[in-house]
Amino acid sequence: MGFKTDIEIAQESEMQSIKEIAKKAGIDEEYLEQYGNYKAKIDYKLLKESDAENGKLVLVTAINPTPAGEGKTTTTIGLADALQRLDKNTMVALREPSLGPVFGVKGGAAGGGYAQVVPMEDINLHFTGDFHAIGAANNLLAAMIDNHVFHGNELNIDTKNITWKRCVDMNDRQLRNIVDGLGGKSNGEPREDGYDITVASEIMAALCLAEDLTDLKERLSRLVIGYTYGKRTEQKQVTAGDLHAEGAMCALLKDALKPNLVQTLEHVPAIVHGGPFANIAHGCNSVIATRMALKLGDYCITEAGFGADLGAEKFLDIKCRQTGLKPNAVVLVATVRALKYNGGVSKDDLGIENLEALKKGLPNLMKHVNNIKNVYHLPCVVAINAFPTDTRAELSLIEEECKKVGANAVLSEVWAKGGEGGIRLAEEVIKLCEEDNSGFTYSYDLDGSIEDRLNQIVQNIYGGKRAVLTAAAQKQAEQLERLGYGKYPVCVAKTQYSLTDDETKLGAPKDFDVTVRELKISAGAGFIVALTGKIMTMPGLPKRPAAEKIDVDENGKIVGLF
Amino acid sequence: MGFKTDIEIAQESEMQSIKEIAKKAGIDEEYLEQYGNYKAKIDYKLLKESDAENGKLVLVTAINPTPAGEGKTTTTIGLADALQRLDKNTMVALREPSLGPVFGVKGGAAGGGYAQVVPMEDINLHFTGDFHAIGAANNLLAAMIDNHVFHGNELNIDTKNITWKRCVDMNDRQLRNIVDGLGGKSNGEPREDGYDITVASEIMAALCLAEDLTDLKERLSRLVIGYTYGKRTEQKQVTAGDLHAEGAMCALLKDALKPNLVQTLEHVPAIVHGGPFANIAHGCNSVIATRMALKLGDYCITEAGFGADLGAEKFLDIKCRQTGLKPNAVVLVATVRALKYNGGVSKDDLGIENLEALKKGLPNLMKHVNNIKNVYHLPCVVAINAFPTDTRAELSLIEEECKKVGANAVLSEVWAKGGEGGIRLAEEVIKLCEEDNSGFTYSYDLDGSIEDRLNQIVQNIYGGKRAVLTAAAQKQAEQLERLGYGKYPVCVAKTQYSLTDDETKLGAPKDFDVTVRELKISAGAGFIVALTGKIMTMPGLPKRPAAEKIDVDENGKIVGLF
Repeated sequence: MGFKTDIEIAQESEMQSIKEIAKKAGIDEEYLEQYGNYKAKIDYKLLKESDAENGKLVLVTAINPTPAGEGKTTTTIGLADALQRLDKNTMVALREPSLGPVFGVKGGAAGGGYAQVVPMEDINLHFTGDFHAIGAANNLLAAMIDNHVFHGNELNIDTKNITWKRCVDMNDRQLRNIVDGLGGKSNGEPREDGYDITVASEIMAALCLAEDLTDLKERLSRLVIGYTYGKRTEQKQVTAGDLHAEGAMCALLKDALKPNLVQTLEHVPAIVHGGPFANIAHGCNSVIATRMALKLGDYCITEAGFGADLGAEKFLDIKCRQTGLKPNAVVLVATVRALKYNGGVSKDDLGIENLEALKKGLPNLMKHVNNIKNVYHLPCVVAINAFPTDTRAELSLIEEECKKVGANAVLSEVWAKGGEGGIRLAEEVIKLCEEDNSGFTYSYDLDGSIEDRLNQIVQNIYGGKRAVLTAAAQKQAEQLERLGYGKYPVCVAKTQYSLTDDETKLGAPKDFDVTVRELKISAGAGFIVALTGKIMTMPGLPKRPAAEKIDVDENGKIVGLF
Repeated sequence: MGFKTDIEIAQESEMQSIKEIAKKAGIDEEYLEQYGNYKAKIDYKLLKESDAENGKLVLVTAINPTPAGEGKTTTTIGLADALQRLDKNTMVALREPSLGPVFGVKGGAAGGGYAQVVPMEDINLHFTGDFHAIGAANNLLAAMIDNHVFHGNELNIDTKNITWKRCVDMNDRQLRNIVDGLGGKSNGEPREDGYDITVASEIMAALCLAEDLTDLKERLSRLVIGYTYGKRTEQKQVTAGDLHAEGAMCALLKDALKPNLVQTLEHVPAIVHGGPFANIAHGCNSVIATRMALKLGDYCITEAGFGADLGAEKFLDIKCRQTGLKPNAVVLVATVRALKYNGGVSKDDLGIENLEALKKGLPNLMKHVNNIKNVYHLPCVVAINAFPTDTRAELSLIEEECKKVGANAVLSEVWAKGGEGGIRLAEEVIKLCEEDNSGFTYSYDLDGSIEDRLNQIVQNIYGGKRAVLTAAAQKQAEQLERLGYGKYPVCVAKTQYSLTDDETKLGAPKDFDVTVRELKISAGAGFIVALTGKIMTMPGLPKRPAAEKIDVDENGKIVGLF
């Protein structure tokens, strides 16, 4: 007897019509724009016109990811299903998946097992077209930049210093580094260029942080696309506003800014909207989606990308700082397997009980628990996402270690059992939400220099000594301060696999430096990106891409999506 | 008192809900997938499950386009509105606009004045995402090609002979010629490459000629992406099927294959679906859309791109040949201004009466009338799309000349008056639809060589002497025959401004040759593309792109779209 695949479970499920889901969420039909029978966009007017109190905000995050898989999205969805079983009015807020991973290695990103959002094929493919709209706006700006240069370059843009890249929602390594504008005079100005995957576009980040269409348009006009010719100390930034591109870009994005409503397998209303990278951007769903879920639900369960050192840090230090949002509880997802991997066990041996290795890997979890409780001062529970190979002894060990620092660890079986498997986790979350979260503080403040901010993150969150800026990064820091970007929060682009900037260093290393090799302004998003190590903004496909197995039958039924 | 702009007229109009429009068209709700309140996709199952008789098929085409504008789409829509006023059950089938021209020079492409399809902003921007889906499928295949080469190139693909290009739905000259795969070993294999605008992707053509999802998948697997290493006489084609890409591509396209339902300003149901280039592809809406409109309406009014030498020729010789469709009547659109332009008048003087110039330009119209009546043997009416500057004497001259060859010329005032302005045209169309169209023949047959086919088009349709194949094209013809593509119809990529391959030769030139410089197989679409002159598959933006004027207010209302 084999397991059912995610897509089989999803396709066998009986969905409720999106109108019923909207009704359940308390969304009046006038705010609803249907995309077929199971998807809808919600008008952002709802936010301005609703006078409902905000519900409780629950952030789901995780230990540093490993090849063993953690199941953060699965836990988020299953927790919401469980809260519903406890008669709580619950909403989920999630990111939209990117096409790149769908056709690459990872497969879909709409939860797993019996904790999924549906219709999973639609959500994983084009959904309501948001990412295509972001790609089009990104590439319209790119075309307008090179067109401006082609027609005389009035703005004096240095073609060797154009920082705006084109994008495509695909894993396509061939486009990482290109030379375009070839073929003679009438075909543009030859220059080095490159592509990012759409989720890495700054427009994605700006859209996800925008409060409304007016705010979005202002953010778009602030996008820095490059710099003028001249000495570094005299260069000026050139913006999308200088090119008069923000109106048309915003017109392309007007529907993409509206959150999308779908449902979990157990019919909890889910808002799935936006999906910025969690390294070079802030890695969580849109502000509008979170605000809406808070208005509509007594509990809003949301997640942040990668591990807590990247996703949760940015959620708390960037998104919460900008919006004034304050989580009531944080769920830290871990698995026995992933902790053993952190303790040095190879991927093939993770199914074997190994308390020694588990003990060695546990500091990774404890560091994150400590950050949430003692840096951010937020209530925290550890969710152990259950695997069939977990042993009682292993689970007990985790529970004991957590208890020592005053956090409960709860087994979550939502992958196998849906909401039923998350009741204990939900009960713990309800309890935490009654606790005091007024001590919430950010991990760094904005008063000092850019370097000060980076040092605080390295020391407070990563557990290292300090941030070391290369000579180039130091010059960039000076330039950003000169250009008026000195007081922005920082968004660290760092490997997700380690608390350090070296992906091979697992567990909870100490006494390390983090080298920042480049600082880049994302003025539309409203943060400074600090690049450490090698950060890939355009993934590649594996030798046998998942795309080779995806198919569709004559009735439009999709198979081979994970 | 100024004229209202198209977008003002469109935004002031009172739309009916798409459910009402569907009901009027006789589409059962089970076949309808709503995209908001005014757009819907129609399930193609409707085609298989309906036993309705086909209505009358009316093809709208035009003289060779000029900068003066002809108004083919406007006439198509206005004619349908007029037929409805005469109590005829009417459907429109149109192409979807591309984003490129919207942000470039042309502005929107959803009709004009009081003959438009609405919601025009949606139709002109993302609509239901079809073009984005085509772009994604195109670029997935491109990524899989380079990924295959990167991971060892088992298929032995010659990287200097990869014919599949990436695409973007944007006018972006900078991408016409690029080198990609730069940046060292882990970033692909450096090679020359380039982008087309999405409407020029062969996937667009294949989707528009597909009969259903199974047919589409077979077409996708036949797409030729390049050739193997080796001597020309030993090279083999490499297809998307060889890369196992067709399943995932088809999954991306499953919704894009469903026709979109909208309405005209006078609430005639309009199917707007697909939009292949009319030069390197066949330039008309999807086969599924045409078939559906024929099932649902007693009259199906459709159009073909550019002038009758390109759009109508391909509609009749490619689309009708493949499907067995047979138009009942052809409407040839002309304007007094465009005919004077053909007679040598400069763009600025077109408002002044000039019977001499009109007489000189008329042969262009007469050549097209003659082609429809005496080559294709179809009933034909000339629609003169009225401009305020037209004089009575000018209109009479056209009417008289048309009468000489047995065609009526009718003034159409749909731009200013909507359906009311097209009553006379509609009456003439109804009359023509009662005539015998059983003599319909193609302008060439498939028996002979590729060169024979090209000669027949040049002689029968363009009025020239013969097609001259360059040495390179001759070798390509031999190769295509060797590879089994010898019997495909030909799709001529030629300037739309002239009956010749030289865009400066207006009117109806004689005794000219047409030079074919390249032959290229579009095995997924099912035709051989014959390239003449300079054909641009990636347009550029003008110095002041239309995008600079497009904007959106805080409520999402778009301004500045034409």
